[in-house]
Amino acid sequence: MLSVSLYKGGYMELIDNLRRYRDILTGKVAPELCINNINIVNTLTREIHHGDLVIDNGKILGFERMEAKTTIDGHGRYVAPLLIDAHIHIESTMLTPMVLNDIFLPRGIGKIIADPHEIANVCGTTGIQYMLDCAERCDLDIRIMLPSCVPATHLEHAGAILKAADIQPFYSHPNVLGLAEVMDLEAVIHEEDMLKKITDALERNRNIDGHGSILNTKDLDLYASLHIRNDHECAQTDGMIDRLRRGITVFIREGSVIKNLKELLPIVNDKNAHQICFCTDDMHPDDIVKEGGIDHVVNLAIQQGLDPVLAITMATLNPARHYKLDNQGAIAPGYVADFFMFTDLNHIVAEEVYKNGRLIASKGIPLQPKKQIQVSVPEKVKFSINCAEYQVSDIQLNMGNHNALKMIKIIPGGVITPMHIEITEKNIFNQFVPNTDKDHTKLVVIERHNQTGNIGVSAVKGFGLTNGAIATTVAHDSHNIIAIGTNDFDIIMAIEQLRKNEGGYVVASDGKILSHVKLEIAGLMTNRDLTDLIEQMEDLHTKAGYFLKNKTFNPFLMLSFISLPVIPEVKLTDIGLIDVNTQQVINAVTDIVT
Amino acid sequence: MLSVSLYKGGYMELIDNLRRYRDILTGKVAPELCINNINIVNTLTREIHHGDLVIDNGKILGFERMEAKTTIDGHGRYVAPLLIDAHIHIESTMLTPMVLNDIFLPRGIGKIIADPHEIANVCGTTGIQYMLDCAERCDLDIRIMLPSCVPATHLEHAGAILKAADIQPFYSHPNVLGLAEVMDLEAVIHEEDMLKKITDALERNRNIDGHGSILNTKDLDLYASLHIRNDHECAQTDGMIDRLRRGITVFIREGSVIKNLKELLPIVNDKNAHQICFCTDDMHPDDIVKEGGIDHVVNLAIQQGLDPVLAITMATLNPARHYKLDNQGAIAPGYVADFFMFTDLNHIVAEEVYKNGRLIASKGIPLQPKKQIQVSVPEKVKFSINCAEYQVSDIQLNMGNHNALKMIKIIPGGVITPMHIEITEKNIFNQFVPNTDKDHTKLVVIERHNQTGNIGVSAVKGFGLTNGAIATTVAHDSHNIIAIGTNDFDIIMAIEQLRKNEGGYVVASDGKILSHVKLEIAGLMTNRDLTDLIEQMEDLHTKAGYFLKNKTFNPFLMLSFISLPVIPEVKLTDIGLIDVNTQQVINAVTDIVT
Repeated sequence: MLSVSLYKGGYMELIDNLRRYRDILTGKVAPELCINNINIVNTLTREIHHGDLVIDNGKILGFERMEAKTTIDGHGRYVAPLLIDAHIHIESTMLTPMVLNDIFLPRGIGKIIADPHEIANVCGTTGIQYMLDCAERCDLDIRIMLPSCVPATHLEHAGAILKAADIQPFYSHPNVLGLAEVMDLEAVIHEEDMLKKITDALERNRNIDGHGSILNTKDLDLYASLHIRNDHECAQTDGMIDRLRRGITVFIREGSVIKNLKELLPIVNDKNAHQICFCTDDMHPDDIVKEGGIDHVVNLAIQQGLDPVLAITMATLNPARHYKLDNQGAIAPGYVADFFMFTDLNHIVAEEVYKNGRLIASKGIPLQPKKQIQVSVPEKVKFSINCAEYQVSDIQLNMGNHNALKMIKIIPGGVITPMHIEITEKNIFNQFVPNTDKDHTKLVVIERHNQTGNIGVSAVKGFGLTNGAIATTVAHDSHNIIAIGTNDFDIIMAIEQLRKNEGGYVVASDGKILSHVKLEIAGLMTNRDLTDLIEQMEDLHTKAGYFLKNKTFNPFLMLSFISLPVIPEVKLTDIGLIDVNTQQVINAVTDIVT
Repeated sequence: MLSVSLYKGGYMELIDNLRRYRDILTGKVAPELCINNINIVNTLTREIHHGDLVIDNGKILGFERMEAKTTIDGHGRYVAPLLIDAHIHIESTMLTPMVLNDIFLPRGIGKIIADPHEIANVCGTTGIQYMLDCAERCDLDIRIMLPSCVPATHLEHAGAILKAADIQPFYSHPNVLGLAEVMDLEAVIHEEDMLKKITDALERNRNIDGHGSILNTKDLDLYASLHIRNDHECAQTDGMIDRLRRGITVFIREGSVIKNLKELLPIVNDKNAHQICFCTDDMHPDDIVKEGGIDHVVNLAIQQGLDPVLAITMATLNPARHYKLDNQGAIAPGYVADFFMFTDLNHIVAEEVYKNGRLIASKGIPLQPKKQIQVSVPEKVKFSINCAEYQVSDIQLNMGNHNALKMIKIIPGGVITPMHIEITEKNIFNQFVPNTDKDHTKLVVIERHNQTGNIGVSAVKGFGLTNGAIATTVAHDSHNIIAIGTNDFDIIMAIEQLRKNEGGYVVASDGKILSHVKLEIAGLMTNRDLTDLIEQMEDLHTKAGYFLKNKTFNPFLMLSFISLPVIPEVKLTDIGLIDVNTQQVINAVTDIVT
């Protein structure tokens, strides 16, 4: 498999290029560019050395100064390869790839390995194709992994069911690198179609991404034996060692919600670092604007004491090698001329950014912004809210004669939600009633893709909502409508606003919509201006914040994780309350002897 | 490109294997073998950890003890992946691949990356095919690189001229990994066909081996830009740093003649080691029997103070990764079950050797020896001595009125032969006459492939021959007949014996053949019993030793390097005396003012 960016013209272009490189290096032809007097961050030897860079036709050709058409004095600044985010869900940024292009490239981020798992759960293959179409219009190198688990489990209903035969044709697309995170252990063990997906990837020598949050060491043996060889869900040092020993590359994740860097960094050493990359997984747009993406993770690692050269290597050469992207991730002859210049090794801020040997961003500004580029949005992506009509009675939780509920417990800062059992309030119809004193709220999940009429209802402990309701269509992995509230009226207000907006976020209180953000692309992303989005999101969070006791977590991201039944322990989906460990629907109603 | 050894059965075999691994690791089916209580040399994390090995169907499946059909107690011994020689010319061992199989495997050597450059120079594509046919009959995993430089230069005549179109069809053979050592810098710079060979390899995402003995840093930029990304000719620390920085993997060579380990080892560190492998390049059969192959190099490195785990990694995982051999070179789930057990980490001696999960050698003895296997030898390989008839007058060096000669100077322990100019003796016909007092000998090279009648004659300084002649058909790279002697009579005696033997080695003195070794396969190798060969070689060296003042080098290997015009500085080929730096034929005759 050749690196597409290098040789898409085939044999004749390849030999023409080689002939030109040869003629340049033997002095017959002048190269396009020479950047003199720089300090090269050499990820191949993990050292910094002084040199010059000869560049032509998008490639680095040498370290020795030559007479070039253009000469630039680097003034001794550092040059590093463009950074790579080893695993990201673009949908979580709420931004289209074009907008992300304009934010990431000026920060020195040149490539992201994206899993369009969310849009695939909403729109199926149409969603994957839309993301590929967007990626083709960007300078940011967006490589796509094919979602392996749509739906993520049989315990909820997503907008699509993607079988091996559905995703297999996408392997012919040059930007598709492999099979995305295999999160459904049950499918791996029991389903023939999952083995087909794995085999389809292996047959083409493609990568298969893992998702190991619930795997024990025996499960890790299984994943590694099936060639599922990376994991971005590793959160503990013991588990990291278990993975590395099995040849499972660990993507240390530092996202908006889940932050594993501090915990895992002490395990990194010069011997095992080749198997370690960085990723963000899920990033919120506010955080991206404030802090950046994978560049921020690299800087955090340096702040934590990691050698800057190693930190850069883990965000460049390591993911390039892991994903078999030859000639990328290093500053060396024959490598793609994707690099950025910077001044402070201990706080890396890209000053000039070069992509394929051309200056593409300077001082944080993209020179060829893509946000105005129109990519046609398929109907299925544009109008993605398609739920059955429902009644107030459909969002009730009938407790009969019982006094307590098994409910989802929120632990601020984490996504693991244990089961909590407590005596709850109920009305005269024996229906559960939220109670702010006990911090009991009502959670509702409505299937929104295929009008099944499925609705899940449960109680939540510890969300800290004191009034009103918040709701969203961004609800991993099925992205059904999910609403949490202290009363049914506000819950329904919020849901109806989401339907009107074709998705997004809503805060409702006392019968009014206090704030809403429209995410009209699959109910996940928007084409709108980033400034508007950020302002609206700030307003949303401000308004939601009025009614939240606990300010230590993002309530909307927490909401989206509450219905993600691949992460332990208790979650709510459109078919009911789920025990993730047993993969069973739970009867929530129970009794506590008083 | 899938690793052939894993998936040659295609999709159905692959999915069947995955299903079986899954069923084993979920406890439904018992694995074939479990080796309990071992210390795993983990090349992925470069550490040693205790564990058990679950093995089935040729693969390692896990580190956790299971109920297996066969259980073995490892008694806490070490387990390491089978060793890989990153670059070897099988022909230099004088042994057929089948005989080498029986020697290497019991020593824990599981794979060699072989360049059949020598037999290709003699027999062209017929020679390559013969080696591939042999390789298929071996358990030793012999991967073939396609000779890129046949002939190695335009300054000599080999038995074949291999163009890109001639070698390109071999890429479809599953054991062919890429293009072998590109040693002809002139061809790289000037010849379109060399660019085609490089492009043919790159188009298929195959490796291209380098050969950088004469490259300066600008040439290294050129090689790296053309994706020629390894070098086994690196002899100095500065050059090693220059290569590593450019992403050129360095194969530290420790062969029978050239030994670079001590010089280069200080450069190895935990940061750059991933780009460093070991190789032997050219090994003599005596040395193999006495010391071993790449296992000996690993032990030497450990003796020199290299961490044993790193030394093993450089001879396992590193070459496997470099040659894109997935799932090889490590002990981990999903990897091929190629490993050996040993007791002493500071002196590694394979005790039991497993290949594809089966015990294949024990206590130095191969359980399935291959030396009796008959592989049909093509006529072209069997009868490879085909030189024109010649006269005594054809091996004279006429000096006319001049008094001195430019000659080849021998430096014991090296292969670089500088030019030496000295007044020489001549006869009444003004022909050069060897003189043992001055240590002047006569060197003769006779083209032996296509009856061209080409004969090169020159003087040599410092070979230390006191009487008689020695001759061989093993003469890098063209393997013409090369003879050195103190008188014409013995030189001709030796040459005629070589013709009778269809190649090999000869010592003649005072009109008698004192010793000779028949190498009837391409004039390079033999099918005979190893014990016989070694005895004959010992006799040969003993007899040659009678007439050699200098015992610090192997006279026959030195002889073979004297006519190799890709190594500096002055060499003799069938077309005459060559200045390697200028790539010109030199007029040897000159004058010294007395």
